Amino acid sequence: MVNIAVLGYGTVGSGVVEVINTNQAIVNKRAGQDINIKYVLDLRDFEGDPVQKILVHDYKVIVEDPKVDIVVEVMGGVEPAYTFVKQALLAGKSVCTSNKELVAKHGAELLAIAKKKNINFLFEAAVGGGIPIIRPLNTSLTADDITEITGILNGTTNYILTEMAEKGSAFEDVLKVAQEKGYAERNPEADVEGYDACRKIAILTSLVTGAQVDYEDIHTEGITKITTEDFKYAKALNASIKLLGTSKKDGDTFYSMVAPVMIGQSHPLINVNDVFNGVFVHGNVLDDVMFYGRGAGKLPTASAVVSDVVDAAKHLNDNIMVIWDEKKTKLGEFAKCKNKFFVRMKDQGLDDNQMLAIKNAFGNVLYVQAPDVSDELAFITDPIAEGDFAEHIKEFEDVYSVIRVDF
Amino acid sequence: MVNIAVLGYGTVGSGVVEVINTNQAIVNKRAGQDINIKYVLDLRDFEGDPVQKILVHDYKVIVEDPKVDIVVEVMGGVEPAYTFVKQALLAGKSVCTSNKELVAKHGAELLAIAKKKNINFLFEAAVGGGIPIIRPLNTSLTADDITEITGILNGTTNYILTEMAEKGSAFEDVLKVAQEKGYAERNPEADVEGYDACRKIAILTSLVTGAQVDYEDIHTEGITKITTEDFKYAKALNASIKLLGTSKKDGDTFYSMVAPVMIGQSHPLINVNDVFNGVFVHGNVLDDVMFYGRGAGKLPTASAVVSDVVDAAKHLNDNIMVIWDEKKTKLGEFAKCKNKFFVRMKDQGLDDNQMLAIKNAFGNVLYVQAPDVSDELAFITDPIAEGDFAEHIKEFEDVYSVIRVDF
Repeated sequence: MVNIAVLGYGTVGSGVVEVINTNQAIVNKRAGQDINIKYVLDLRDFEGDPVQKILVHDYKVIVEDPKVDIVVEVMGGVEPAYTFVKQALLAGKSVCTSNKELVAKHGAELLAIAKKKNINFLFEAAVGGGIPIIRPLNTSLTADDITEITGILNGTTNYILTEMAEKGSAFEDVLKVAQEKGYAERNPEADVEGYDACRKIAILTSLVTGAQVDYEDIHTEGITKITTEDFKYAKALNASIKLLGTSKKDGDTFYSMVAPVMIGQSHPLINVNDVFNGVFVHGNVLDDVMFYGRGAGKLPTASAVVSDVVDAAKHLNDNIMVIWDEKKTKLGEFAKCKNKFFVRMKDQGLDDNQMLAIKNAFGNVLYVQAPDVSDELAFITDPIAEGDFAEHIKEFEDVYSVIRVDF
Repeated sequence: MVNIAVLGYGTVGSGVVEVINTNQAIVNKRAGQDINIKYVLDLRDFEGDPVQKILVHDYKVIVEDPKVDIVVEVMGGVEPAYTFVKQALLAGKSVCTSNKELVAKHGAELLAIAKKKNINFLFEAAVGGGIPIIRPLNTSLTADDITEITGILNGTTNYILTEMAEKGSAFEDVLKVAQEKGYAERNPEADVEGYDACRKIAILTSLVTGAQVDYEDIHTEGITKITTEDFKYAKALNASIKLLGTSKKDGDTFYSMVAPVMIGQSHPLINVNDVFNGVFVHGNVLDDVMFYGRGAGKLPTASAVVSDVVDAAKHLNDNIMVIWDEKKTKLGEFAKCKNKFFVRMKDQGLDDNQMLAIKNAFGNVLYVQAPDVSDELAFITDPIAEGDFAEHIKEFEDVYSVIRVDF
């Protein structure tokens, strides 16, 4: 029998308990032994909930119990999760976590401790919710030079953008509905400003490069400036706008970014809609591969956590190789990263002069139009270095929109 | 250093050599040690090819060399692959194979030998080419009661159906082009009659149920009867026709089938086009997840084989748990499996009588129309047991098409 302790009885924590109880026979068979939930840690009491029998309020009970083999950390946030997880690993207990903040910030260090102790630190649920992506990166995509990993990594923003695309609604209106439905949090900043996706692409890029990528180093833009007019152009171009976390290799250097991007029908992520997530990987021999599923939600996320518990139980004193050094991956300078840009600006009514200025600033551009939008100029540039674009766009007044384009 | 021997220097075999040579540093790092190709077995000579230095014609050289740790079988076909693989495993050498016929027929037995010898029998490339699906099923989707696995598992037929859908071409014409382009074989029977997809869904279903599914037990239909008119209806219904290998659980029983199916825009596989493959899995807690990529081709397939080599090298004397008992999974009786059917038949010009007969046979049906198609009746039934449908369709003369519907 393998004893586990679950830290945090919130959405994911109660999901983990539910998944293990619901699929007990399957989980035990896959683990090769019985999985027993010995403790649940939470500061709260849960009157009338069967969890009360195994509820503890003091973390010490768990870390000091030699019979606990695996600690499941699903509290979220860096502290006290980091302290608890580190103590657990140092005490020889494997840890499974869904905590992207923790993994993005301390993943390399915690993996190193697990390796030293010959136990495991697993985090399948930290990216893509229920979608298997961490384990496939570590164990399946091992024959390739991975040159791109790009994902729709945040369900809340993807839901908002999908509604905007399909219903022509404004960002603020959809956000409000999403909050009412529980798809978006009261304070939606982490989602809509791209911070959540940023941590996730940092984790994925660390695994792809085999060394620490600090999320602070990744240029991050959210979706708050995307308008209904932008989607009118996207529709006219048979494209859509998605919040992408992306890392692309140019030469030996990876360039990473989180930003809304206009993508066309041939992009592998174009049909990832609503709260679904998708992760696209390009390898030099594998070519394209894509993983799709529910990137959030109580049970899908818990399913991924429990799959880690099964893996940890199968490898109790046997470290699963994960290559993620503490030594930093040096990302390419963002200003040198080349992108195509979709730009909307006020039509100054001086056609020739303005278009000449645009040409001088950005070279040849493709002018585009959308129905029911007037008094403005919209165009798509050829690939330009981010730094050059940022410099030249300053020359123009009344710029309504700047969105990167990948088609 | 880990020594491997590659059996067969055909498309996949030469791809394996190319992948290992091209990505040597990455592969060695992921494996944690150097991978060395000690032998390539082929009956042919390859004058001028660097492979000549390590080419052998006699399998004995390989099986009797104690320094060979891993045998890569990429010859295809059941014999002599089966004999060679079994001998290798009995000699204590792990085996990685792309051979779906071998795995479908002898997978359970070969896995049992590998387990007994504490080595590994791996076959990621046998299903879905480069797409990671076998390893995710064994190691990631372990917390779920999987209630459906459905795939577009054959690139040749998917290419043909995509061309028919997009260009309105006839089956025979597209097949001819596919043969000229090398996407279809001279003798295309294994692909177009669904036999290839059948072996693959048998393998996937064996892994999902944990026990042997014999491919001979799976009802299999190919795409040779699909016409341009069928696609006119599909288009009018905003649907497409795909060759699916599918296993769905009803109660405790799995029902398996390979057949062309009309699917709608909300189906997770609707956008899997051309030679791409996709595998959709539904779990009771995970909900939907989908894996997409190149289901065939020299390098993508070789990438999957080499990922198995890496895994085998990391687990040289350590059996990776794969649950696939020799005891058979009892599939549900096909006649009892319920499906919706799209039916086209000659309009006998006696509207009321014919429609009454249709109602008596199939209950309420939805009549559908397509542009430029006349003198026929087309309708979609509610779900009907396969046996009942087969019985009643006999009552009608001049039936042009019967295609299952999943929307």
